[in-house]
Amino acid sequence: MVSMNWELVGSVAALLTMFGFVPQIFKIYRTESVGDVSFTMLFQFTIGIFLWLLYGIHIQDRILIVANVISFTTLIVVMGLYLKYRKNKLGEAIL
Amino acid sequence: MVSMNWELVGSVAALLTMFGFVPQIFKIYRTESVGDVSFTMLFQFTIGIFLWLLYGIHIQDRILIVANVISFTTLIVVMGLYLKYRKNKLGEAIL
Repeated sequence: MVSMNWELVGSVAALLTMFGFVPQIFKIYRTESVGDVSFTMLFQFTIGIFLWLLYGIHIQDRILIVANVISFTTLIVVMGLYLKYRKNKLGEAIL
Repeated sequence: MVSMNWELVGSVAALLTMFGFVPQIFKIYRTESVGDVSFTMLFQFTIGIFLWLLYGIHIQDRILIVANVISFTTLIVVMGLYLKYRKNKLGEAIL
């Protein structure tokens, strides 16, 4: 009875995960605070996504390449914001 | 001149990303604080990973299934910790 559009399921899955760090970018931009965010998590994802990108280039899979270029870019932004605001936590606690 | 073991590259990429949220779990467990973590990010990844899992089951790809079961499980743990500790930020600021 239930018919699934599997191409749509895969596409939505890809979109949600490749832009997964965007809400974190907005949150950091708004609060200017990153004290609770794990930098190890960000760094681990960045290396992992970069290796996925290399692998995607190797097997010449366009979807893998595009998805990981987007993820990699958002992760670079998150890490940049992290490094910019990492000293803000104490200030926020005092204020 | 440079010879890459592409299976190793893909495997390391998969391991780093499927366990990508584990450092965040450790950080929240240690600090009991989640105020700077974006719940929207966690929720978006959880839905995305769940759809990847459904897609993996559909195309019967064992690697996609295993990777996304692991990611999904770690995300459920992060979200559980988030909901447990989300009220701790003010307390931490006062202390």
